[in-house]
Amino acid sequence: MKNRVITISREFGSGGRTIGKMTAEQLGIPCYDSELIRKIAGESGFDENYIRDAGEYAPGGFLTAAFSHRGPGPNNADYIWELQYKLITELAEKGPCVIVGRCADYILRDKADCLKVFVHADMAFRADRIVKVYGEREESPEQRLRDKDRRRAAYHRFYTDMKWGHAQNYDLTLNSGTLGIDRCAEIIRSLY
Amino acid sequence: MKNRVITISREFGSGGRTIGKMTAEQLGIPCYDSELIRKIAGESGFDENYIRDAGEYAPGGFLTAAFSHRGPGPNNADYIWELQYKLITELAEKGPCVIVGRCADYILRDKADCLKVFVHADMAFRADRIVKVYGEREESPEQRLRDKDRRRAAYHRFYTDMKWGHAQNYDLTLNSGTLGIDRCAEIIRSLY
Repeated sequence: MKNRVITISREFGSGGRTIGKMTAEQLGIPCYDSELIRKIAGESGFDENYIRDAGEYAPGGFLTAAFSHRGPGPNNADYIWELQYKLITELAEKGPCVIVGRCADYILRDKADCLKVFVHADMAFRADRIVKVYGEREESPEQRLRDKDRRRAAYHRFYTDMKWGHAQNYDLTLNSGTLGIDRCAEIIRSLY
Repeated sequence: MKNRVITISREFGSGGRTIGKMTAEQLGIPCYDSELIRKIAGESGFDENYIRDAGEYAPGGFLTAAFSHRGPGPNNADYIWELQYKLITELAEKGPCVIVGRCADYILRDKADCLKVFVHADMAFRADRIVKVYGEREESPEQRLRDKDRRRAAYHRFYTDMKWGHAQNYDLTLNSGTLGIDRCAEIIRSLY
């Protein structure tokens, strides 16, 4: 019942999601990312945008501590984590797939035959890319990247015992800035 | 004058050196490792074994502080670092090659068209491998690995501003334990 699953963690703007989609297309298997968010939203009744954000905020972390009143016991973020855990496990049991983000590497660590990938790139490459893909914002692209990086690392640290971006947590890490997005997808596909 | 150079940093026992040699053979370019140590030894007049060890001890680090009397100014380790720096720069200028270890990734960061690779594997894989390759010792293989890992990380930290094993420092990191040594060499070759 163990399926071959590719999990992709990624720095914001590195093209990890694009690489995931390309790999899945080339392999003829599904890729779960925003679709996964919609599924979670459907089950939980929470708004989709809220769930998208909850996937990047560590409850009780330095970003939320000042603005929230976290008491003992689970909060909404914990509830969403549980749902996400259950959904990702079910998706991996259903069949081979690519899962982007959402700590899938951690959730599936003992459950599926996983290829764990991390995609990153330098600030200049990512800054250029987020402006092209997501457009300009009031904050500088560098500020947006630093903010997102911090959130993802904090979320990962809160819910898993893995260190974000440490080579030892992954089978493969790729610098999409130097290797190129197409080449990254090719390498992952060749390992499947 | 910029040559294509592959630098391989590696955890002890991960097969990084073997992967470097295989890659170089497949590409028909030289691989520098113990040969490099001999070159440094030849130029410095230091004993070869001394130089091999000096490449893994951070001067003034926690391992040596208790036993050495480091005064101001360069010591032998610093002198060897300078030689190593000069030699690695010359080798990279001479032509395409693979260089294993010795902070070549850092030394060549602005000097050559480098593919920076880090190879790692889990404790069980490496413990098994060092006993097969280097034989049994009085200390357990796990103890030998922990000791070597600490030394290499400390040496790297002392002479470079790069964090050992952080994905962001490399173009590519590979888990030789899950991907296999042959497959790692293949991936590197395909990127050259």
